[in-house]
Amino acid sequence: MGKIAVCPGTFDPITYGHLDIILRGAKVFDEIYVCVLNNASKQPLFSVEERMDLIREVTKDIHNVKVDSFQGLLVDYAKKVNANAIIRGLRAVSDFEYEMQITSMNKVLYDELDTLFMMTKGKYSFLSSSIVKEVAKYNGDISDLVPEPVEKALKQKFNN
Amino acid sequence: MGKIAVCPGTFDPITYGHLDIILRGAKVFDEIYVCVLNNASKQPLFSVEERMDLIREVTKDIHNVKVDSFQGLLVDYAKKVNANAIIRGLRAVSDFEYEMQITSMNKVLYDELDTLFMMTKGKYSFLSSSIVKEVAKYNGDISDLVPEPVEKALKQKFNN
Amino acid sequence: MGKIAVCPGTFDPITYGHLDIILRGAKVFDEIYVCVLNNASKQPLFSVEERMDLIREVTKDIHNVKVDSFQGLLVDYAKKVNANAIIRGLRAVSDFEYEMQITSMNKVLYDELDTLFMMTKGKYSFLSSSIVKEVAKYNGDISDLVPEPVEKALKQKFNN
Amino acid sequence: MGKIAVCPGTFDPITYGHLDIILRGAKVFDEIYVCVLNNASKQPLFSVEERMDLIREVTKDIHNVKVDSFQGLLVDYAKKVNANAIIRGLRAVSDFEYEMQITSMNKVLYDELDTLFMMTKGKYSFLSSSIVKEVAKYNGDISDLVPEPVEKALKQKFNN
Amino acid sequence: MGKIAVCPGTFDPITYGHLDIILRGAKVFDEIYVCVLNNASKQPLFSVEERMDLIREVTKDIHNVKVDSFQGLLVDYAKKVNANAIIRGLRAVSDFEYEMQITSMNKVLYDELDTLFMMTKGKYSFLSSSIVKEVAKYNGDISDLVPEPVEKALKQKFNN
Amino acid sequence: MGKIAVCPGTFDPITYGHLDIILRGAKVFDEIYVCVLNNASKQPLFSVEERMDLIREVTKDIHNVKVDSFQGLLVDYAKKVNANAIIRGLRAVSDFEYEMQITSMNKVLYDELDTLFMMTKGKYSFLSSSIVKEVAKYNGDISDLVPEPVEKALKQKFNN
Repeated sequence: MGKIAVCPGTFDPITYGHLDIILRGAKVFDEIYVCVLNNASKQPLFSVEERMDLIREVTKDIHNVKVDSFQGLLVDYAKKVNANAIIRGLRAVSDFEYEMQITSMNKVLYDELDTLFMMTKGKYSFLSSSIVKEVAKYNGDISDLVPEPVEKALKQKFNN
Repeated sequence: MGKIAVCPGTFDPITYGHLDIILRGAKVFDEIYVCVLNNASKQPLFSVEERMDLIREVTKDIHNVKVDSFQGLLVDYAKKVNANAIIRGLRAVSDFEYEMQITSMNKVLYDELDTLFMMTKGKYSFLSSSIVKEVAKYNGDISDLVPEPVEKALKQKFNN
Repeated sequence: MGKIAVCPGTFDPITYGHLDIILRGAKVFDEIYVCVLNNASKQPLFSVEERMDLIREVTKDIHNVKVDSFQGLLVDYAKKVNANAIIRGLRAVSDFEYEMQITSMNKVLYDELDTLFMMTKGKYSFLSSSIVKEVAKYNGDISDLVPEPVEKALKQKFNN
Repeated sequence: MGKIAVCPGTFDPITYGHLDIILRGAKVFDEIYVCVLNNASKQPLFSVEERMDLIREVTKDIHNVKVDSFQGLLVDYAKKVNANAIIRGLRAVSDFEYEMQITSMNKVLYDELDTLFMMTKGKYSFLSSSIVKEVAKYNGDISDLVPEPVEKALKQKFNN
Repeated sequence: MGKIAVCPGTFDPITYGHLDIILRGAKVFDEIYVCVLNNASKQPLFSVEERMDLIREVTKDIHNVKVDSFQGLLVDYAKKVNANAIIRGLRAVSDFEYEMQITSMNKVLYDELDTLFMMTKGKYSFLSSSIVKEVAKYNGDISDLVPEPVEKALKQKFNN
Repeated sequence: MGKIAVCPGTFDPITYGHLDIILRGAKVFDEIYVCVLNNASKQPLFSVEERMDLIREVTKDIHNVKVDSFQGLLVDYAKKVNANAIIRGLRAVSDFEYEMQITSMNKVLYDELDTLFMMTKGKYSFLSSSIVKEVAKYNGDISDLVPEPVEKALKQKFNN
């Protein structure tokens, strides 16, 4: 039976940084579930459906990626899809500490599930959905930061 | 005359991580004032009174602990109760920098008062009131994270 | 032609920490534009005009400092005023990571512009506008933290 | 064809922290090569052969683990054994920065190879071969830190 | 019975940073044992006896400080002098991680003993014995960094 | 009169990371003194003369760069050449803390001198002279890490 990993996130919207982690994860695992988290209290720019559509579009050529969403505890989702592992990107020290906290909590809730981290490529290490939205809002060039469909969707949102 | 320390926090709600620091502080100082801060701008889950009641219940067997609350500058509270020191737990690098900022500020405001830090036990180093509330909200098992009365109170809040 | 640097910030309000960076920058560059950022989503205590007035008052003896404000991408402002560099203070590791992210983003948007950092003096390394406002709100002594005109302005805001 | 990962290290000697990472890696990958690095300039306590023997002894019940050693660039070893990935444990922020440097270097040398990180369990997050040797040297109790064969081997080395 | 703390270190030589921690510790505890560690593998500049003499001289006016030395595990020393706690200064994030490792190890070896940390004063946060020796070696002014007897001793060592 | 900056380092040997900082510094300052430090206790791979020659060769097209060496306190060198500032690259959090220590010390020794930091470009953020030497030693490809004359010199040293 194949190894399954979950790649969870807010993806509001997906960037080249996220895509890099998904691609690399897809080489190590037999199947990757990219899951849009639906718990966030703050108002996202894109709806869960819009975020899933953008991910589907930019990962359509990776045959072993599935796109999904969930609300609740990540460990419950991992159990549901029989995942062996969670996969996450690490950009910086501040990411590291936050991820360590979440990983330790998940270990307490479901010891069978492990979390694997990949260092974000140097050229994407500064990249976040928030910074992309800030630049797009003021009409800066984001073509090196997000795939084309995401660039288009951001332009529509900000009426640029 | 005995040495008095203040152990301040939001305690929304108290976790086993907080309790560990209070217990260890109670061995070093003659008296510990556990103080619920009432300055926070964001909406807490538990009222100040509820938070104090939970702390009282879970510390009732530690004879030299007093539970209190305050609104204002911590240094003013410390003066009021004649405390020699503030006691705080450190979990991670991000805690460290925040605490360093607060400690330096308090030193400027009241040089007589010192702050003593204890490293949180490894098994509680990921624990925070926020993460406990997130898990409790989605009905995850929190019995290893908070004392029983807190677990009960969280279940009532979230109607689980 | 002289070297021009932009010193951007929220400055809500300016502290002795900011002033130290501006003064030191004014020794290295021929001209410093101190720019109040007007993008912030959260409600500031002082209006952009009030913040600019306070900066003007406390920098009036530094002949090569200009005070300005802007809304939009910092790189667009830097182009407008022909700046060679951005100048920023670094207090702590958390500052460092945030600044690295912003600097990398700005490099992508406008490669000609460089960012120079100065370490905040030890005695100001804990200082932030937020902490000053918190202390002022509860009537603590802030005379070592901000210049006199700022102290006055804060007292008026909080009716102390 | 199965997924192969290399788990490199100095292992002077192997601790429960290393063993935890190997065990968890063995659940995600089809085969794990535990490789003793032989580049170190400082004098190790155990010879490469002794270190390999100890690893073999404490991993003998994990069927998909192979023990090996190498001198040279890790990427050359990975190519030789057709590994898809390197697997490493992360204990702390300082680990993170060092690992990020090595990982980036390896990416430049061999882009096909990825590195996956696992957070060390809370109770082992302080553990290092150096600290174990320091405690063993002064006859402290190390039975919770290393497997029994390693404890014995350390006692022999220090004639305790 | 009084509360006893151990303040361990290499003290090669004692600086104003160390002295600040000792002074502040002496206000919280009834007795402070300042202990020169004698385990270091690298060649110290001052002998254990010289280091103890310098500490004695600069702490002679603090009535509840005792100066001592030891070779072996710190927990064994703490047991010998019936100490309740270890006291340490924290200057920076890198200190924090190292201290967390040592503290966790000591907790495993002797659970009764706790470690209390104090943040080094801002103006001493850059100070280390190594940096003092480097400056003294090239005849730089160290009068703000170390007490006078230490300054004299350093000048003698470097024949300045 | 022009603004002069010192860019100090061990440069054993110079990498593309160093060169990037020198180039960017040369745009902000009228003159840059690249200075090889000659204090290091460990045995360098290249002599001070060889290191200076390599720097001269790879910076020969930057008209406002001078190459020099010194032994002693950096502040004394800065005074000698009438420098207004020191310029340094920052790669990571660990760099940041070390640099903060050195900068604070230099401020105590010579308050007129300021230190300006530039973030190393993402693609060089993992790069160090040590890692380059390690790769060159085992005959790895370093053509993306160091300029051609340095690559040649390293090959000669390791007889590859």
